[in-house]
Amino acid sequence: MLVRVDFLNMGVSGRWLFFFLHRSPTHLVSVLIFNTTSHCFVLVKQFRPAVYMCEWEKAKTQPPKSAEKTEEGSTSQWLPASAGVTYELCAGLVDKPNLSLEEIARQEVLEECGYDVPASKLKKITSYRSGVGVTGAKQTMFYAEVSDDNCVSPGGGEPKEGELIEVVKVPLHEAMTFAYDERIPKTMGVIFSFIWFHNNMSPKYKISTNV
Amino acid sequence: MLVRVDFLNMGVSGRWLFFFLHRSPTHLVSVLIFNTTSHCFVLVKQFRPAVYMCEWEKAKTQPPKSAEKTEEGSTSQWLPASAGVTYELCAGLVDKPNLSLEEIARQEVLEECGYDVPASKLKKITSYRSGVGVTGAKQTMFYAEVSDDNCVSPGGGEPKEGELIEVVKVPLHEAMTFAYDERIPKTMGVIFSFIWFHNNMSPKYKISTNV
Repeated sequence: MLVRVDFLNMGVSGRWLFFFLHRSPTHLVSVLIFNTTSHCFVLVKQFRPAVYMCEWEKAKTQPPKSAEKTEEGSTSQWLPASAGVTYELCAGLVDKPNLSLEEIARQEVLEECGYDVPASKLKKITSYRSGVGVTGAKQTMFYAEVSDDNCVSPGGGEPKEGELIEVVKVPLHEAMTFAYDERIPKTMGVIFSFIWFHNNMSPKYKISTNV
Repeated sequence: MLVRVDFLNMGVSGRWLFFFLHRSPTHLVSVLIFNTTSHCFVLVKQFRPAVYMCEWEKAKTQPPKSAEKTEEGSTSQWLPASAGVTYELCAGLVDKPNLSLEEIARQEVLEECGYDVPASKLKKITSYRSGVGVTGAKQTMFYAEVSDDNCVSPGGGEPKEGELIEVVKVPLHEAMTFAYDERIPKTMGVIFSFIWFHNNMSPKYKISTNV
């Protein structure tokens, strides 16, 4: 689909042409999950092709020190898959117009992380724009407290939808160190939400601040 | 360019095919700028075609209440350009391999916001992955303190590069209200960096926390 946009911005007119290969999502939800039984945050860890490709682009311009031995013993120029793995908040697309954002977020918590909590337990943190240069989607972030009693499955996403998700727990006392450790690849949503928790939930839960 | 990626992730093998229309950036820098003379944050406000298109997609599925009168007096189904405007940190691509990240960030501060500060004044806040589903670029965020004495031009970006940027000041005492006001379209980088400032610079500068 080719779309033309004519605009007038601060006295300057112009035109953009967009070529859509497929419909991009216009709205996403993400959820900071805190397990009150184990005092851990529940994140998802997944392989992101786009991140992998960035690392691959970067490695191409560097000396071949990143080459690794493959299982067959030959030297490969491919990076290990771990180069494309990121830690993220549980998240998903708003693709069901009849459901509330809270209900969609609830389903993602169940599918990806295995916790069954009522939608009423989801508290909105805020909303913002993500990927303003490419997708421009609105993103609404929620906070959900869960307990071990809410855990009904191991999670892991929907393999038939191509999701390969590992559920990861980050203990509360390690959260701030995790947030600012640049060796751990993660999204801004993880960093922000840990700090939001620190600022807003600290009267209720103690969090280490020695960073 | 068509790129094939074969992967093995948690015991599941698969293949992704990427079609690059152009080379995406693999690394970006962004800068939280604080003016110590006026006690204001310095942001950029710009029209983002992708955000506009998202709003347009959303408006299509809603009753035509969003229709507006054009200058010619006829009713248009186009949304006003303001629907595509976002508030963001000063930012740019890392596209000069011979320059340090601090030097690239310094150039963006000068081009977009008109402040000339030495690269040594740029303090790294942290780095993270942005747009993990689409671009996967690494993003490094800096903090820069500037004063009115550093202001050498009105900024506004490079019109020849298609940049249409308005420099906006947010007073320190309004920063937290601004960060959490969902009616103001903004990136997560703005929200996070305001809160980072609040948590880390508050011994030095007083910031209102009545949110």
